Amino acid sequence: MTSLKKTPVPEWWEETAPGSFRSLFKWGAPDQFKHPNRGLINLLMKTFGMEAADFIRPQLVGDDPVNEIIPGHLSDVQIARLSEIVGEENLKLDCYTRIKKSYGAGMIDALRLRRKIIEGIPDAVVNPRSKSDLALVIAYCDQQRIPVYTFGGGSSVTRGLEAVAGGITIDMSAHMHKVVAFNEIDQTITIEAGMSGPQLEEALNQAPARFNARRRFTCGHFPQSFEFSSVGGWVVTRGAGQNSTYYGKIEDLVLSQEYVTPCGTIRTPPFPRTATGPDIDQIMIGSEGTFGVLAEVTLRIFRLMPENRTCFSFMFKDWQSALAATREIMQSEAGVPSVYRLSDPEETEVGMNLYGIAGTTAETILKTLGYRPMQKVLLLGSTDGEKGYCRNIDRMIRKICLASGAFDLSPFNITHKWEKDRFRDPYMREDLQDFGILIDTLECAINWSNLESVHSQVRNYIKSRPQTICMTHLSHVYPQGANLYFIFIAKIASIKEYLDLQYGILEMIQKSGAGISHHHGVGKQTAPWLEENIGSASMDVIRALKRHFDPNNILNPGGTLGLDLNPEQRARSWGKDLKG
Amino acid sequence: MTSLKKTPVPEWWEETAPGSFRSLFKWGAPDQFKHPNRGLINLLMKTFGMEAADFIRPQLVGDDPVNEIIPGHLSDVQIARLSEIVGEENLKLDCYTRIKKSYGAGMIDALRLRRKIIEGIPDAVVNPRSKSDLALVIAYCDQQRIPVYTFGGGSSVTRGLEAVAGGITIDMSAHMHKVVAFNEIDQTITIEAGMSGPQLEEALNQAPARFNARRRFTCGHFPQSFEFSSVGGWVVTRGAGQNSTYYGKIEDLVLSQEYVTPCGTIRTPPFPRTATGPDIDQIMIGSEGTFGVLAEVTLRIFRLMPENRTCFSFMFKDWQSALAATREIMQSEAGVPSVYRLSDPEETEVGMNLYGIAGTTAETILKTLGYRPMQKVLLLGSTDGEKGYCRNIDRMIRKICLASGAFDLSPFNITHKWEKDRFRDPYMREDLQDFGILIDTLECAINWSNLESVHSQVRNYIKSRPQTICMTHLSHVYPQGANLYFIFIAKIASIKEYLDLQYGILEMIQKSGAGISHHHGVGKQTAPWLEENIGSASMDVIRALKRHFDPNNILNPGGTLGLDLNPEQRARSWGKDLKG
Repeated sequence: MTSLKKTPVPEWWEETAPGSFRSLFKWGAPDQFKHPNRGLINLLMKTFGMEAADFIRPQLVGDDPVNEIIPGHLSDVQIARLSEIVGEENLKLDCYTRIKKSYGAGMIDALRLRRKIIEGIPDAVVNPRSKSDLALVIAYCDQQRIPVYTFGGGSSVTRGLEAVAGGITIDMSAHMHKVVAFNEIDQTITIEAGMSGPQLEEALNQAPARFNARRRFTCGHFPQSFEFSSVGGWVVTRGAGQNSTYYGKIEDLVLSQEYVTPCGTIRTPPFPRTATGPDIDQIMIGSEGTFGVLAEVTLRIFRLMPENRTCFSFMFKDWQSALAATREIMQSEAGVPSVYRLSDPEETEVGMNLYGIAGTTAETILKTLGYRPMQKVLLLGSTDGEKGYCRNIDRMIRKICLASGAFDLSPFNITHKWEKDRFRDPYMREDLQDFGILIDTLECAINWSNLESVHSQVRNYIKSRPQTICMTHLSHVYPQGANLYFIFIAKIASIKEYLDLQYGILEMIQKSGAGISHHHGVGKQTAPWLEENIGSASMDVIRALKRHFDPNNILNPGGTLGLDLNPEQRARSWGKDLKG
Repeated sequence: MTSLKKTPVPEWWEETAPGSFRSLFKWGAPDQFKHPNRGLINLLMKTFGMEAADFIRPQLVGDDPVNEIIPGHLSDVQIARLSEIVGEENLKLDCYTRIKKSYGAGMIDALRLRRKIIEGIPDAVVNPRSKSDLALVIAYCDQQRIPVYTFGGGSSVTRGLEAVAGGITIDMSAHMHKVVAFNEIDQTITIEAGMSGPQLEEALNQAPARFNARRRFTCGHFPQSFEFSSVGGWVVTRGAGQNSTYYGKIEDLVLSQEYVTPCGTIRTPPFPRTATGPDIDQIMIGSEGTFGVLAEVTLRIFRLMPENRTCFSFMFKDWQSALAATREIMQSEAGVPSVYRLSDPEETEVGMNLYGIAGTTAETILKTLGYRPMQKVLLLGSTDGEKGYCRNIDRMIRKICLASGAFDLSPFNITHKWEKDRFRDPYMREDLQDFGILIDTLECAINWSNLESVHSQVRNYIKSRPQTICMTHLSHVYPQGANLYFIFIAKIASIKEYLDLQYGILEMIQKSGAGISHHHGVGKQTAPWLEENIGSASMDVIRALKRHFDPNNILNPGGTLGLDLNPEQRARSWGKDLKG
């Protein structure tokens, strides 16, 4: 513990000047922060051989104002027409807005903005007020061959928003965030796609006041980006929330959708299941703005019953026994947990500090019982649903974990500690970057029989790089497999160095036989790996659908979903020649 | 009860001469029968004003041998090449086989065969031995523009198999019914698409002996046609089993598929969930043989745990309270039942006899308590899963049903009685038809808020026809809605009269706002209603996919999925001019 106390705590940068570069790339609210704790700083210093002096001067903090003037390429006539459609006040031509609405929350976005590298921004940002505005804008842009990008919450980590070909960005969050219909009988809500996570949950939680409902509801969809992501973004990227093991991924929650496409509006029926041909909903979900712009969506909703929730956490002796227990839980048919998060040995070591187990008697007991550092594995989670349902799966989890030699840590309230900060971890990214430390993530989808192999191949690849932290957890579990989520932390000096690592990990995920994305989507950055991952025959289907919906390729052009990769993307080196 | 005893029991026709027309249209095994009981005969006599004399002489029994010689249109060169690919013994040119493999189990199929109307048969039946046979056959047929139809189990009720344009029918059941891989870790099985339901369940139930597995498994997919349907048929029609409320519809069970298409082979990855663009699996599921021929499929499997099953049955005072209770059960988040079957008042009256409640003290008690004929509503069902899970949802069902004023009939073992005959009811069709009585079904998908309205609109339409029995049940329930299954029984003299009724019901289902198919698929007969049901924009997507996979329209041509409707189909009068 001495070392922890000796660790300097840097003077974290807490200014987010309006109009500054930092205000563009800083995660979350400008005045909100979560700074790394002493434990993490200590780990970083040890790992990277850093000293107190290295934490004195933050670098590339991006406090300069965005004064750039980047001319757009729309003609006066085009600007006039777009302005006529949405109203003058809903057409933005200033550079700040154009950057803000085309940079996402990926590490590459922050790295570029810290270096004042501005690229791939639209010529204008358009804020449609309604479906009819949207339809007019799309039809006009198709006629004029103006590229169209769509902004929801801005949390893409795959360069999904980037207006590579210029044109316009449609900002769905400006006006199109309203509830269209609420149906308590069917337990559905229909909303405009620009609605944010908190707006949706607020409406559902307050259903008695808002809609005169008998009950309170939840959508159950809580991605880490919850507070700054949009429902439309969830849908078009096939996202998942942290509670998806119970509530399902977004593709399990969508009942009906309305998209505006260059070939017209498409609206799907709201039936829970049908046998009327291919599932059109599942064609549009995951289309990432390349087939159409999602205007409205009808989602399944659930009863809000936090009073039934149970929490659990366990320490396993090793990764193998933890994986076997997890599989048994998911295949037991005793119901499913809601949050289920299993940290690998390296992440568990960090968790020991994070969740306050280190230095307690529990740590001593664990040591005595043979739970060893860099071998033991931490599980935390919770249940959702009706009371008896929660109890039954909770009982089963306990039974299986204990039978697998796991130690019950539930009294330590680890799940609560995790939950308290569940949406706040991304705030630390800026602090670390201020001192040259990069933290990023990649995730993938795997079947059980290949999970250990994927984990060790990808982890070994990351760890083969000197001085690199690799924490992995398994979350979003299924009877047939799971998602693996790799977090890597490294001291990285240049964009090229970052992309070498990032792309190298992607190559290794691909090689290991995993699906290259479980819930982040594909975007433009992961796209070069897509065709190999899903196969050329499947890629041909996506291309055929693209030709149908968007024959002039105005929607999200620039490599999204691998549809029109540029040579740099094809070479899997996109961005590596950026300076800095 | 006196009337029942007085009812004559006809001498049911029990000959199924090999090679006869009857052998083509009789449901199920040639030597298996389930004859209508006295109660049903009594009901029919009363409804149709029939007398004992009407049950003496069976009509149009189809005992003549199929002696027809219908020349095919394949050239000698084509026959030689196909024969070369699959082997001479796997190319069938005889008329009997060509009829057998292109007529389904729909009422229209039986009506035509009873009248010796043969149409829409292929020129040859081809039995591929392997995926590579299949690929060669498809490529050759595409090159030669030979139409290709696919036969799995032959249980289509939508004219799905009919070789309207001649060409060949590929019989997947001949050889391609093998297990390709069994994976206990992932709980998956990969099989060739021609495998039948019983073949699949046998393999899974006997997994310890067959695959050296630790456990026994089930697929949980039991459509009424289980014994004579194929896994491939389930998948390409988006079918459902009677236990789908727990196990899911087939689209929930498919993990990975391999199709042979004119533009090559497409194989999807087996991950439980991904975020890599549109879901290609959900494009191919429901494609009904128009995009490709399903060669192999990987399915999720479940542990076989019949020992945990609980059964329940209740009598509600009326349809409204039963629907409200059902919705509450499905929205309670206490887990889900497996079989859940709620009969409307008219079906309940038949059930009273069928399940032996009529004439017992239970009937007296029900009457005393105010459960009235043609108002009361019967629920039966069962649970599946782990023991505690079963108990929890069973407890919740009981609680909700009792709170809704339902009477607990569970001690009467009604679910067991239903289960015993669950696959056998279709056998009665031939008996009834022998005496001019037609029984047929149509089903649809509905959200809760529209369910009562759809039920009354469709039912009223059917009942507006004099002397017509209409029994309806709700099964396959979801938090957002359910399937409604209409069974109609009528004395019908001609094919036109049948189709007038059938098509009229379809029109009314359409008009009521329901989805026109929940699990039967679309085929060629329901296809004329598809575009209006899903919308032209969705239909355009299906057409675009068709152009991609099958540009020469060799796969299942003739209106399937509404892709190439003939004028009669467009006029929604297909088949009405058939004589007889």
